Amino acid sequence: MSKSIFYHAGCPVCISAEHDIIELVGKNNVEVVNIGEIRNRIEEAEKAGVKSVPAMVTPTGNVLHINYGASIADVKG
Amino acid sequence: MSKSIFYHAGCPVCISAEHDIIELVGKNNVEVVNIGEIRNRIEEAEKAGVKSVPAMVTPTGNVLHINYGASIADVKG
Repeated sequence: MSKSIFYHAGCPVCISAEHDIIELVGKNNVEVVNIGEIRNRIEEAEKAGVKSVPAMVTPTGNVLHINYGASIADVKG
Repeated sequence: MSKSIFYHAGCPVCISAEHDIIELVGKNNVEVVNIGEIRNRIEEAEKAGVKSVPAMVTPTGNVLHINYGASIADVKG
């Protein structure tokens, strides 16, 4: 199985969801990307269909928006 | 690891998320409950903090609302 990508922006909702997802999916199966810090990956997240964070893009390209921390517009600031 | 519970109501968003979650978490690690059909488990889902479906309650009791299919009020009808 190729990796999922979990995008977040450091918000409390994001951190909580990150812990849960890593526990459920396994640390080795998910790449965690903080687009609040690694800003040159915001565009990649948007292209994948991420509308808000936290969100996970599955190996098949589906986007799972998990709870709601902040919109991509908020992350862009 | 004890099981997560994935609550859904048969909506297209639910079915899509169900496939993704089962793929990611493993079929044996998640109980899938259609509260549109098994209506006597709606109350249990609400008590766990589920506000909308699809949603997953983790073994530690956290609720992950995954995308948005329908509110619990919609499911109650």
